[in-house]
Amino acid sequence: MRAVSRHSGIEVLDSDECRRLLAQDEVGRVAVVIGATPMIFPVNYALDGDDIVFRTLPGSRLDVGQGHAAFEVDHFDRDQKAGWSVLVTGHLEAVSWYQANDMRRVQALDVRPWAGGDRSVWLRLRPSFTTGRVIRGDEGVASP
Amino acid sequence: MRAVSRHSGIEVLDSDECRRLLAQDEVGRVAVVIGATPMIFPVNYALDGDDIVFRTLPGSRLDVGQGHAAFEVDHFDRDQKAGWSVLVTGHLEAVSWYQANDMRRVQALDVRPWAGGDRSVWLRLRPSFTTGRVIRGDEGVASP
Repeated sequence: MRAVSRHSGIEVLDSDECRRLLAQDEVGRVAVVIGATPMIFPVNYALDGDDIVFRTLPGSRLDVGQGHAAFEVDHFDRDQKAGWSVLVTGHLEAVSWYQANDMRRVQALDVRPWAGGDRSVWLRLRPSFTTGRVIRGDEGVASP
Repeated sequence: MRAVSRHSGIEVLDSDECRRLLAQDEVGRVAVVIGATPMIFPVNYALDGDDIVFRTLPGSRLDVGQGHAAFEVDHFDRDQKAGWSVLVTGHLEAVSWYQANDMRRVQALDVRPWAGGDRSVWLRLRPSFTTGRVIRGDEGVASP
């Protein structure tokens, strides 16, 4: 059962659907706050339980942006004027090399950055809030 | 002449290319900070000069998130492990109904939200910083 806002035509995705959409992709976007300014960066990611896990370069803005963060995946169909998005907000933190079991587990995930470089910093976003939205478009055929 | 980081294989897009990529799409993502947490929302947008202009519902999180903000467009080719992204950071503010010329000009832009509802609040992101990146992928064929 999905909630549909008559106000906007936007349908709310339930948590199972959000989870499925997060699990089926490999590239999304992380937002971190640098100074007071939010910044958005594409990342290759995988799920470790409910956590979003990805890699970055030591000292990168994602590395220094640990703390409150967001992650988003979406798909747009410009012809149908349709699309969906899933937003996760939570706490971004490094996977510690001192937590050997955690590190082994995330290193076994299929996280292969398209970008090169020594992406030896593993970050995880621990979700506190997940939400998803879909707009079905002119013909109502777009399904996430 | 594009700068390529040998460190990461990421190529930096110049400002003309960033501007062209921003001008050719109609849907992107805005990040605002609500409390201390960044949030990412898809929006339909247009350019008003260099400003990113879009519409939202009165009282929405984008409406209350005015201040420091970011905007991103991207394209990913998962088969090629390639993609590009353009990030704009700046100041998000409402287009004032008291600035009749400004309001008339943005209302004449082709900003048609896929979502319904009374999206009577027009917001503009005034860019302070624009940057773009491309990863050409395994076969080096991906062009933004």
